[in-house]
Amino acid sequence: MARYDIAIIGTGPAGLEAAITAKVRNKNVLLIGSRSLSSKVEKAHAVQNYLGLPAVTGEEMQKSFLKHVDEMGITITEDKITTVYAMGEFFALQGNGEMYEADSVILACGMSVAKPFPGEVEFLGSGVSYCATCDAALYRGKSAIVIGYSEKEEAEAKFLAEVADKVTYVQMYEGEGELGGNIEIVKGAKVLSIERNGAKMSLSLDCGKLEADGIFILRENVAPSQLVPGLSIEDNHVVVDRSLKTNLPGLFACGDITGAPYQYIKAAGEGNVAALSAVNYLADLKKKKEA
Amino acid sequence: MARYDIAIIGTGPAGLEAAITAKVRNKNVLLIGSRSLSSKVEKAHAVQNYLGLPAVTGEEMQKSFLKHVDEMGITITEDKITTVYAMGEFFALQGNGEMYEADSVILACGMSVAKPFPGEVEFLGSGVSYCATCDAALYRGKSAIVIGYSEKEEAEAKFLAEVADKVTYVQMYEGEGELGGNIEIVKGAKVLSIERNGAKMSLSLDCGKLEADGIFILRENVAPSQLVPGLSIEDNHVVVDRSLKTNLPGLFACGDITGAPYQYIKAAGEGNVAALSAVNYLADLKKKKEA
Repeated sequence: MARYDIAIIGTGPAGLEAAITAKVRNKNVLLIGSRSLSSKVEKAHAVQNYLGLPAVTGEEMQKSFLKHVDEMGITITEDKITTVYAMGEFFALQGNGEMYEADSVILACGMSVAKPFPGEVEFLGSGVSYCATCDAALYRGKSAIVIGYSEKEEAEAKFLAEVADKVTYVQMYEGEGELGGNIEIVKGAKVLSIERNGAKMSLSLDCGKLEADGIFILRENVAPSQLVPGLSIEDNHVVVDRSLKTNLPGLFACGDITGAPYQYIKAAGEGNVAALSAVNYLADLKKKKEA
Repeated sequence: MARYDIAIIGTGPAGLEAAITAKVRNKNVLLIGSRSLSSKVEKAHAVQNYLGLPAVTGEEMQKSFLKHVDEMGITITEDKITTVYAMGEFFALQGNGEMYEADSVILACGMSVAKPFPGEVEFLGSGVSYCATCDAALYRGKSAIVIGYSEKEEAEAKFLAEVADKVTYVQMYEGEGELGGNIEIVKGAKVLSIERNGAKMSLSLDCGKLEADGIFILRENVAPSQLVPGLSIEDNHVVVDRSLKTNLPGLFACGDITGAPYQYIKAAGEGNVAALSAVNYLADLKKKKEA
């Protein structure tokens, strides 16, 4: 498996800035995320205070960012990381079916708006999953509930439905999907909690209960506490120092995930600092290995 | 005297970003510095990693920054602050002859490259001065030494020479000035130390000693420790937390003055955070006053 110098998770301003700074410093970068705009950027109206880009929409801004990244020959690997494992001197990243390895990792995956549901963390790995592609095989001939937070997740639900007998799709957004066949859709419901009920998992909604063999929760962002086991979190944000180090050596965080203010230029500035801190970490790691 | 909400010292990326963010938040901003480019920006070659502005020169970048500030109707007050006094619930700023008042202050005046000369801090205010316009009157019929770090300071020396009997100008940069009359020029010398010698001040250079009634040190940046009495400094940088608060309530710092990495986008990101921290401080101050 290719071992990257720096894996960057997230393609907002923090992740993109981290990528261009790491590239300028000649690092072998894996940039993971989506080229399509996040729902947050799409919703943004004119941004007045990104110095050098007066009064642009969030969409125009993100386009100019992607152009910058493209011009520097940086590719975006379209994937979603569900877990980052600190293995000692490197990190293993669980993607949607694929694994990656890197000497250092920069978390730039934005603010996790949602707190985990009651029961979610407790049953994660034993009835609750964040990745249909990874775990679909376990549901052959069984039933599953998918809680989907964006249209993108419909493809995941369809894939799961090819294997599972029955899928219930709890749609957490507006819009008409194209799901059908053995996929039942539940709209406008509020999730209350997750429980185990004998061999089955049970999902309590404000409008009733659903039961299935497993529950998939497909959010745009995995909560940082779930993403990286052992990571220090305070108030749902990753704890960092001024150099954007986390409590795990070799792991850095930048942008909204480190807390307010939630601003493009703050995120980009932090991406720069995180990348340079990772570069310093790699230099120290190299010295240590040579010693 | 007009009392500003926020006084911002410095017109690099940190100060300009702080100004536009404060303006977006409807604050009454005093932005102090120079519209002309700093020597550091002039020297910068292509900057590749300011996200959104691919591969521009430092000069082009600063121009696009100034354009942004202009478009938002923010004016730059061309002055140099030599001392910031924390007066309790407001700050007094000593400019080049003029005083300003503000409820909060953001230091964005860049890295102070030079450490103070031996003796400089000891005799500051009693033989050593940072401001010819402020203190010239004290040198009527007397002699003065001016240590000038840029061509801009020649005007200060000329003004002083109108009042003083004799001025010795220690030129710390390359180039032919237009000084004449009662101004003697010393070039290519290295300053070693400042001493008092009876009623006279004495400046030790590597090539000999100069004596006069007073010594003016005119640097592009005043060292932060001299700029703000009582400010916490470590390794010649202002100590700040993640919200860019200094040890003095109401005083914030951002950009190169807070330490490495010395990068445009890091400075701009910090300018944004400092401005929003100042906005929060002002809201608390208002509550406190109303209580």
